[in-house]
Amino acid sequence: MARLADDRYGKSAVRVFKLERGDGRHTVRDLTVDIELTGDFAAVHTAGDNRGLPATDTMRNVAYAIAADGPLDSLPRYAARLVEHFRELERVTGASVEVREHPWARLGDAAFERGHGGTRVHRCADGAHGGGIEDLLVLRSAGSGFSGFERDRFTTLPETEDRIVATIVTADWDHDGTPDESAWGAVRETLLAAFHDAPSPSVQFTLHRMGEAVLDAHADVARIRLVLPNVHHLPFDVSRFGLDDRGEVFQPTTEPFGRIEATLER
Amino acid sequence: MARLADDRYGKSAVRVFKLERGDGRHTVRDLTVDIELTGDFAAVHTAGDNRGLPATDTMRNVAYAIAADGPLDSLPRYAARLVEHFRELERVTGASVEVREHPWARLGDAAFERGHGGTRVHRCADGAHGGGIEDLLVLRSAGSGFSGFERDRFTTLPETEDRIVATIVTADWDHDGTPDESAWGAVRETLLAAFHDAPSPSVQFTLHRMGEAVLDAHADVARIRLVLPNVHHLPFDVSRFGLDDRGEVFQPTTEPFGRIEATLER
Amino acid sequence: MARLADDRYGKSAVRVFKLERGDGRHTVRDLTVDIELTGDFAAVHTAGDNRGLPATDTMRNVAYAIAADGPLDSLPRYAARLVEHFRELERVTGASVEVREHPWARLGDAAFERGHGGTRVHRCADGAHGGGIEDLLVLRSAGSGFSGFERDRFTTLPETEDRIVATIVTADWDHDGTPDESAWGAVRETLLAAFHDAPSPSVQFTLHRMGEAVLDAHADVARIRLVLPNVHHLPFDVSRFGLDDRGEVFQPTTEPFGRIEATLER
Amino acid sequence: MARLADDRYGKSAVRVFKLERGDGRHTVRDLTVDIELTGDFAAVHTAGDNRGLPATDTMRNVAYAIAADGPLDSLPRYAARLVEHFRELERVTGASVEVREHPWARLGDAAFERGHGGTRVHRCADGAHGGGIEDLLVLRSAGSGFSGFERDRFTTLPETEDRIVATIVTADWDHDGTPDESAWGAVRETLLAAFHDAPSPSVQFTLHRMGEAVLDAHADVARIRLVLPNVHHLPFDVSRFGLDDRGEVFQPTTEPFGRIEATLER
Repeated sequence: MARLADDRYGKSAVRVFKLERGDGRHTVRDLTVDIELTGDFAAVHTAGDNRGLPATDTMRNVAYAIAADGPLDSLPRYAARLVEHFRELERVTGASVEVREHPWARLGDAAFERGHGGTRVHRCADGAHGGGIEDLLVLRSAGSGFSGFERDRFTTLPETEDRIVATIVTADWDHDGTPDESAWGAVRETLLAAFHDAPSPSVQFTLHRMGEAVLDAHADVARIRLVLPNVHHLPFDVSRFGLDDRGEVFQPTTEPFGRIEATLER
Repeated sequence: MARLADDRYGKSAVRVFKLERGDGRHTVRDLTVDIELTGDFAAVHTAGDNRGLPATDTMRNVAYAIAADGPLDSLPRYAARLVEHFRELERVTGASVEVREHPWARLGDAAFERGHGGTRVHRCADGAHGGGIEDLLVLRSAGSGFSGFERDRFTTLPETEDRIVATIVTADWDHDGTPDESAWGAVRETLLAAFHDAPSPSVQFTLHRMGEAVLDAHADVARIRLVLPNVHHLPFDVSRFGLDDRGEVFQPTTEPFGRIEATLER
Repeated sequence: MARLADDRYGKSAVRVFKLERGDGRHTVRDLTVDIELTGDFAAVHTAGDNRGLPATDTMRNVAYAIAADGPLDSLPRYAARLVEHFRELERVTGASVEVREHPWARLGDAAFERGHGGTRVHRCADGAHGGGIEDLLVLRSAGSGFSGFERDRFTTLPETEDRIVATIVTADWDHDGTPDESAWGAVRETLLAAFHDAPSPSVQFTLHRMGEAVLDAHADVARIRLVLPNVHHLPFDVSRFGLDDRGEVFQPTTEPFGRIEATLER
Repeated sequence: MARLADDRYGKSAVRVFKLERGDGRHTVRDLTVDIELTGDFAAVHTAGDNRGLPATDTMRNVAYAIAADGPLDSLPRYAARLVEHFRELERVTGASVEVREHPWARLGDAAFERGHGGTRVHRCADGAHGGGIEDLLVLRSAGSGFSGFERDRFTTLPETEDRIVATIVTADWDHDGTPDESAWGAVRETLLAAFHDAPSPSVQFTLHRMGEAVLDAHADVARIRLVLPNVHHLPFDVSRFGLDDRGEVFQPTTEPFGRIEATLER
């Protein structure tokens, strides 16, 4: 006879993004949350009786709800609030929460960079030199909208004047002659500044601005190609839980993603 | 001055799962679709004028709509239908579609296995032997529901008597003594059979059945631990596009996922 | 004061490939081995005194040596032999070994395929259809050499008339017209057969043969591009351990790799 | 008839690490190099005639040789030198080099950190809080040796008093009570400092020092577990090419790796 010696379950990889707008100087926190519960659930396993079992889908909702309900200025407090919530459920005897933070560094009042700063690429093909950057993660939380686009029977996306735009910049460009060792860092700075120095009515517009800025500022760059995936941050509606929805919590997604590509030349 | 030399955009990594139920012997196709359009979109880039621009979100909807509208028995035909659809849009001059298939092998009328069959693991710690399996992808498309679970103010998941259950089995178990070289394959067969030989009122129930089956059939296995992520396949509603929705198209997701774990002993 | 409550160490991700040539019908086993030891090593941690500490590099050597010394026809026996070896070391009190197998399916007497069979790709760009395959892992263990190549002061590679060739095929091709649903499988079969149906004096030669075979056998394929990384399997010399070296154990590597690419047209 | 329309080949993922010791304040560059050549190689493909064909193994050697031969203070110059070298070969008509840099930030004269600074983890299980860090890449290039370890017939590793130690720190620890939001950053700083503030006769010794430093400096940490993979940087011998070998170029490897783990408690 089999004996149920240990059982636990939960929701993993809940991606919670919190944006606090303050007085215009935004702060963001980007978290991955894993939740695991134990309790009196033997009948779920052996008799197919789900009474009293919290759904893992509900756990996900709670991760967003508690992130929305009050400031998210302490991971220990956020994790403790989640644990307390789950432990109050009738059949739950233990709750464990693990939170990982993906830190964003500030680029501006409402613009951020994450990760290691982008991988430098240098190409030399026969005589010709080119540069590139990969894995440059940037995000802006103000000044970005998307409206006026084509609508037909398959269109469900609402227009918006205020959305998060996040992308992972890939770019490659051609140099006239042999660039200095310092050229790459200068192009990177230009790309970062142009990402957030103007309103963004579309990723295409921002891509074009970034490319144009590089051609304007770097006389030896003859051509630049940019590929900007649109890493969608979906607003997570917490009003359905009876909470005041200030539009502060989002679900970052990886699949599917938009992909915007263009090449600019002189 | 910068010149827009080339531009293209689209939606990538659209995960389309199609289930055709036939007369009870199901067939499934599991696709990743990339769509890319070119057209007269200079003003989008330079003036922020989005008129005539199909949203990438709409492209995603179309990938599901066309998968739902008629049989999906030929990738060339499916891809060609997508291309034709997009080329009819007014501002679009070129459309390119790339489809990747993730093949599922049949385990039963409504059960499937994908991938290389699971990685065999063998452990030996001092005298004691144990086996394991990783990356065993299985899916069932009939006989699975989830209902009767706890509901509170944070619960939004509807009850269902018919859902897809997909998981990536990780298991490890202890042997009494030294197993034969053939033992691992036999345990694997037991796990596969028990995954789909009975109704599934929850992943927990199915996990328990799999573990119990191994302990029942393999006298030298003293303990087994199973970890079953619940790889959610979300129904994609195509009725909003004016199509007959037969519940055949789904969006497989990777984040978040349920995680169900238990250990069974004699 | 800090107390050392638990310590363990070892070598992970030791890639062991064993080829047994039998009477011409080869068998292969492809393993990843993790080894972990415990013992009386407090002074290593606290005093920098390494006496009696087996190096993890030595553990790696033993994984190859025991794979070479006798048939590798049972993972339990192989793992047990490793454990026994390490437990005999003076300061070692516990040894744990974990072996993962990457199974190769037979294509011929000395040719094998691994994994899920390759990902099918179908492309449709405006009117034109194309196919492709990705992640098709194949290996041949006879009939392959590499000699007569250019030598200069930077050349250290010895010539060989007998080496393992393993690759991960990526191919894409153009169809005239719209292919049948069955076309992809037929091209895949042609690629697999041509990979091992003739001697291989270089990866280039085998690539060319594969491409030529597709153009010969599939009248509607107008062009094919193949990219074949050369996944090096380095002979692991066990004669230095006093063992009879029959040239049966190899170290598969991932970095660096050769990359051979060509396009064939009619 | 098949026509060879395009062919190119080379070596990819050549991992080149250059350490310049200067007057004690080290500088490091960590590169991944891809090399691709074109030339008159039709007979290689069609006739199995390898005469004049540079081996990809030779290309790898050249990537290290040129990195060793003079300062590596400009990626454009390094890439250009590689291209020039290959273009001088008789049958080569085109050479293309792509270099990616993995930047290391300075922690000390001979200690470095790479990447995004490590992922913060916070755990709360029922009442108890714990912290953790993952993916903290650190490297030291002075003060590290490994000697005096056990030698037997399977030991081939030479003793060394000067090696590179690189690791990817994973740690988790338990807090008494609820930590402040700032606690994690403080523990991280302690780990970084203790990684390189003393000689390292083994990874075990350095691990122990890091754990002890955390327990010493953070009164509310009751237990810490550290896992330190030993990411081997193998010296690449360039003396065989007739170059002066100053011990400055290394090959970073990923498989296999040492794995050192210990738990310290008060």
